[in-house]
Amino acid sequence: MVKISQNLIRRMPKYMRVMGELQEAGITRVSSAELGRILGFTASQIRQDFSCFGEFGLQGYGYNVEHLREEIGKILGTDRGYTAVIVGCGSIGQALINNFNFVDHGIDLIAGFDVNPERIGTVMNHVPILDISEMGKFIKAHNVTVAVLAVPKAVALKTANDLIEYGIDAFWNFTNVDVVPPYSNVIVENVHLSDSLLVLSYQKANNE
Amino acid sequence: MVKISQNLIRRMPKYMRVMGELQEAGITRVSSAELGRILGFTASQIRQDFSCFGEFGLQGYGYNVEHLREEIGKILGTDRGYTAVIVGCGSIGQALINNFNFVDHGIDLIAGFDVNPERIGTVMNHVPILDISEMGKFIKAHNVTVAVLAVPKAVALKTANDLIEYGIDAFWNFTNVDVVPPYSNVIVENVHLSDSLLVLSYQKANNE
Repeated sequence: MVKISQNLIRRMPKYMRVMGELQEAGITRVSSAELGRILGFTASQIRQDFSCFGEFGLQGYGYNVEHLREEIGKILGTDRGYTAVIVGCGSIGQALINNFNFVDHGIDLIAGFDVNPERIGTVMNHVPILDISEMGKFIKAHNVTVAVLAVPKAVALKTANDLIEYGIDAFWNFTNVDVVPPYSNVIVENVHLSDSLLVLSYQKANNE
Repeated sequence: MVKISQNLIRRMPKYMRVMGELQEAGITRVSSAELGRILGFTASQIRQDFSCFGEFGLQGYGYNVEHLREEIGKILGTDRGYTAVIVGCGSIGQALINNFNFVDHGIDLIAGFDVNPERIGTVMNHVPILDISEMGKFIKAHNVTVAVLAVPKAVALKTANDLIEYGIDAFWNFTNVDVVPPYSNVIVENVHLSDSLLVLSYQKANNE
C-alpha cells in the first residue's frame, strides 16, 4: 500500500459518513463528480484519493456506494473487532457512554472506570462502571484496544502512563493535556475542545 | 497583517495552552529552543510562527510568558467579549455546560436552549435553560456571537438554518452533520467526534 498523507486520512471518515448518508437515502451508486459536489472537493481530488487504496470505481459507472463504504471501513479498521474502555466517567465520560455510538465505528465499549464510589458498580447505557484499581487486570484480561481518556486534567498524565504500562497503545484523549510526548509509538487522537473553540474565536475575530 | 496559514492557526491554541502551563508553574520567560522542546517543534519553526504576528521576542532574552500569552489571546479574539448559547441541552450540551470552562476562552455562556419541558426553566451550572421557541428573540436582544450546536442529527440542518436567520455566523458544531455548505461565509468549527475516532482506528489498524 502506498504511503497515505495525514490530510487524506482525515478525509476518509468524511467519505465514510457521506457513503452512509447516501445508503440511507437509498442511493446505490455515485460518480466522482457527484461526490465532489456533496463534499466541496473536485472530482479529480476524489479519484486521486481513492486511487491510493486501489481501484474502487469503474469508468462510466462510478462507485458502488455499499462496496465503497465497506472498503473505506476496512481501511479505517472498523472490521477489526476493536474494544474500548472509558477512563473517567464524569460529565464528558458519561456524555460519551450515553450518546456516542461506538458500535457504528466497529468498536465495542466494554467498561468504564472511575474513582467515585457512587459511580462504581453502576451500569450506564449497558456499560458497567468499574473501580479504577481493577483497570490493569481488566485491560490485560480483555485485550482492550483503545482507552478513552476523560479524567480530570490533574491526573491525565499519570493515568495515561498507567494505561501504557497495562499495554494500551491507542488513546482517544479528551483531557486537553498532551499525554504522550511527540514521536512516541503510542497513538493519541486528541479531541482538544479548548483548541477548537479558540480556532473558532480566531476565525470570528478575523471575519469582522 | 500577513496571511496566516490554517496550520499556524491550529498551532496558536497550543502555544496559548503551553503559556498558561508555564505561567502556572511560575516561569516568566522562555526561549524559542525551550518552547520547541516542550512542543516537539524546532526553534526556528516557533520563531517563524511568531514572526507572522509581529515581534514578541527579544534576542538573547526569549519571550516574556505573560506578554506572549496576552498577545496570543488577542490574536485568538479572547479579549473581544464574545458570548455564546448552547442549542440542544441533552447529554453533550449538558457536558459542555457543566464541564467546559468557556470563561477561560474569553466567552460568556449566557443561555442554553432546548425543546424538552423538563429542562426548560432549569438552571445548569449558573446557565438558564430556555425554550427554543424564544431563541430568535433572545439572540437578537443579546447580540450572541457563537452558537454551540448540540441538537440531534435529524434536526441539525434546520436548527442551523434558523440560527443563521437569527443572525448567527459562528457555529461550534457537535452534531456530526456538515451544517453549512463549503465556501459559505458562515464560520463553522466542527467537533466531528466520529471522524476523530475513525482516524484513531485507522492509525491503530496501520500500526499493527
